[in-house]
Amino acid sequence: MSAVRVGLLGLGTVGAGTINLLQRNNDEIARRAGRNIDVVSAAARHLDRPRACSTDGIRLTTDPFSIVDDPETEIVLELIGGYEPARELVLRAIDNGKHVVTANKALIAKHGNEIFERARDRGVTVSFEAAVAGGIPIIKSIREGLTGNRIQWLAGIINGTANYILSEMYYNSREFAEVLAEAQRLGYAEADPSFDVEGVDAAHKLTILASIAFGIPLQFDKVHVEGIGHVSREDVAYAEELGYRIKHLGMCKWTEDGVELRVHPTLLPERQLLANVDGVMNAIMVMGDAVGPTLYYGAGAGAAPTASAVVADLVDVVREFNVEPESRVPYLAFQSTALSDQPVLPMSAVETAYYLRLEVLDEPGVLADVTRILGSNGISIEAILQKEPAPGADDVPVIILTHRVKERQMNAAQEQMEALPAVQGRINRIRLEQLQ
Amino acid sequence: MSAVRVGLLGLGTVGAGTINLLQRNNDEIARRAGRNIDVVSAAARHLDRPRACSTDGIRLTTDPFSIVDDPETEIVLELIGGYEPARELVLRAIDNGKHVVTANKALIAKHGNEIFERARDRGVTVSFEAAVAGGIPIIKSIREGLTGNRIQWLAGIINGTANYILSEMYYNSREFAEVLAEAQRLGYAEADPSFDVEGVDAAHKLTILASIAFGIPLQFDKVHVEGIGHVSREDVAYAEELGYRIKHLGMCKWTEDGVELRVHPTLLPERQLLANVDGVMNAIMVMGDAVGPTLYYGAGAGAAPTASAVVADLVDVVREFNVEPESRVPYLAFQSTALSDQPVLPMSAVETAYYLRLEVLDEPGVLADVTRILGSNGISIEAILQKEPAPGADDVPVIILTHRVKERQMNAAQEQMEALPAVQGRINRIRLEQLQ
Repeated sequence: MSAVRVGLLGLGTVGAGTINLLQRNNDEIARRAGRNIDVVSAAARHLDRPRACSTDGIRLTTDPFSIVDDPETEIVLELIGGYEPARELVLRAIDNGKHVVTANKALIAKHGNEIFERARDRGVTVSFEAAVAGGIPIIKSIREGLTGNRIQWLAGIINGTANYILSEMYYNSREFAEVLAEAQRLGYAEADPSFDVEGVDAAHKLTILASIAFGIPLQFDKVHVEGIGHVSREDVAYAEELGYRIKHLGMCKWTEDGVELRVHPTLLPERQLLANVDGVMNAIMVMGDAVGPTLYYGAGAGAAPTASAVVADLVDVVREFNVEPESRVPYLAFQSTALSDQPVLPMSAVETAYYLRLEVLDEPGVLADVTRILGSNGISIEAILQKEPAPGADDVPVIILTHRVKERQMNAAQEQMEALPAVQGRINRIRLEQLQ
Repeated sequence: MSAVRVGLLGLGTVGAGTINLLQRNNDEIARRAGRNIDVVSAAARHLDRPRACSTDGIRLTTDPFSIVDDPETEIVLELIGGYEPARELVLRAIDNGKHVVTANKALIAKHGNEIFERARDRGVTVSFEAAVAGGIPIIKSIREGLTGNRIQWLAGIINGTANYILSEMYYNSREFAEVLAEAQRLGYAEADPSFDVEGVDAAHKLTILASIAFGIPLQFDKVHVEGIGHVSREDVAYAEELGYRIKHLGMCKWTEDGVELRVHPTLLPERQLLANVDGVMNAIMVMGDAVGPTLYYGAGAGAAPTASAVVADLVDVVREFNVEPESRVPYLAFQSTALSDQPVLPMSAVETAYYLRLEVLDEPGVLADVTRILGSNGISIEAILQKEPAPGADDVPVIILTHRVKERQMNAAQEQMEALPAVQGRINRIRLEQLQ
């Protein structure tokens, strides 16, 4: 059978990695897919750049629209990233009746509803396994492997840069800013690290995971997003003393009242597998009502792992090339007519346990005031750790772990505690989850 | 659209669990599959037994063949287990043009080649996600999620009973026989525990995993199988002292000379995620050349987790009900015309590191003799641990970790060491893998 003709948009790291993988494992892939998969054309911004792959036999162009409009192109592979012109290119590819494979988490999280509706109208496939957690087949596992379950919640380490920084802070007692600067120097983190360390990248991925887990539309703008900038070396050490690790998690949870969508640093019990996922690795824990807890671990970024997911999508599309649209797996796991309008909960209604670090003046009665405020707001205490003052310092750190409580109660308690004369500055507050 | 009609063979734990799950999550499953899935008939050996599920509206029979032959049955769900009559029933269902979903690892491992050939001829689907690692979607992940990769090896904790016993030996310093007896009392282990603790069950599952990883025919009779009966409480403790955990692994590995297929207890570095999978949980680590290491974790047995996998298969079949056979995912991941005839390596040619426990007389020169024998057989030593003799005992345990070496060299060295007058009895030998 003739080879499937792929038109590639974007010849950066992942684009080159995909070409390399398709060439290197060409026979292995054809043994699985039943046909060869050839990249026949590729669009790049500059044609004279050195590349990390061979482009022999590939028609190169600076005009991605020429590939999208080319009748020869059977599958459009979008690896440009970002919102535009990726959105316009993908919609035009769909209008032209072409299947699309993309690794673009921002595009799917923000414009996925529009894209999938258009793709449904035209009867083409849009695949996006590489958009979440790199090489881990997490989209497929949830969308097809757990279809008998009501998914109750999922929690994932889905940004490798943030996890690398937190791992370094833990293992080598380093400060956030120092590790970040090193990660940028080593090329792990972008020059503008805000997407990674402020949680936007994780929020894109969580948006997608929540939709396929719960059968809700993509709602990126409703995700609560917190980065790791306020986690200090001391917090990491105090958490360890109490038996916890701090991880940057994307979490979503189904409750009767609504869906929780949130990205924030989180204390996890140190025995949890998820707490032991280190460095740039990713892992997602998924809780189904039938299967119980499951976990999926692997490389969440990088040329080859991302290419692994891209090629898996290409093989899926090729295997199902002649399948009628209604027999394909729905884009968001659930039939488009069966999406739920369950609302997204405001954070004030979300319940978690908390880690609190207060700097207080070393004088009598402070702890009594603090615990009274917590009690009067209905917050019970799980553990308190009072440290010695640093040499020459007036204030001492007090660390409190609370039981689960709604955020609005914690907000009220925090305001009252910070108004105490003995409490210095802001209280550092980090959520805590048992994941049970 | 009308409901899909499933005929169920076997109303035991998993059968009842599947009926319960289909009933409880009926709407959630239909939202994903696009159609309702109804069990319309079920065969059980005795009709008057109390069941763990409601059978209202289900036609019950003691004759499974009547279900397989019923023109009303669209999908046959085989949950009887064992080789016969499961094989005859499945083949007849295929001959009748029905799709088959099965959780039967023994059947697929031993008769899968015959079953898949028959299914190919008739153009029907045979799905078997529940046959390996319960609710973990490991078949789907390898078969569809890692299709861009050459799988280099995989290693799995794929028998929950064996893992429960080893976990108890580790955490509570208990002896094998004592934990096994308890597991039988609690119903974790079968009355005849040989399938679990002697590794036959794990070998069934490994056979299936190796085929879909490498694209080779199912070759159950070529798996090297070792149980955990010779692992003592002392071995578990010595391994811990050296930084290792002992796990019962199924492993397969692709080498230039052949494929390794083996089930045996294995020392793993304690920081490996796989080493920290405890109790009855399962996990499989898969190494792909593009994606690197990935890991899949979850419940490997039990009514609800197994039902989770069974229902996922049913949803897959329903989604693809009208798909032409050539557009479906191949049974063993690779196109049937593209299976490899790579031979299975004899164990004598398999290379691993080793843990050795010798009981030796406490006299001079013994260690020199032992290390000389290892050296003359080309075996280098990674670590030696010599313990004090127990009070009143003449002999002392010596623990040796070796570097990687072919088994035939280790066999020769072991024979020579056991011939030394100072070496008492047999040497206890357990393989060691770094999984890197």
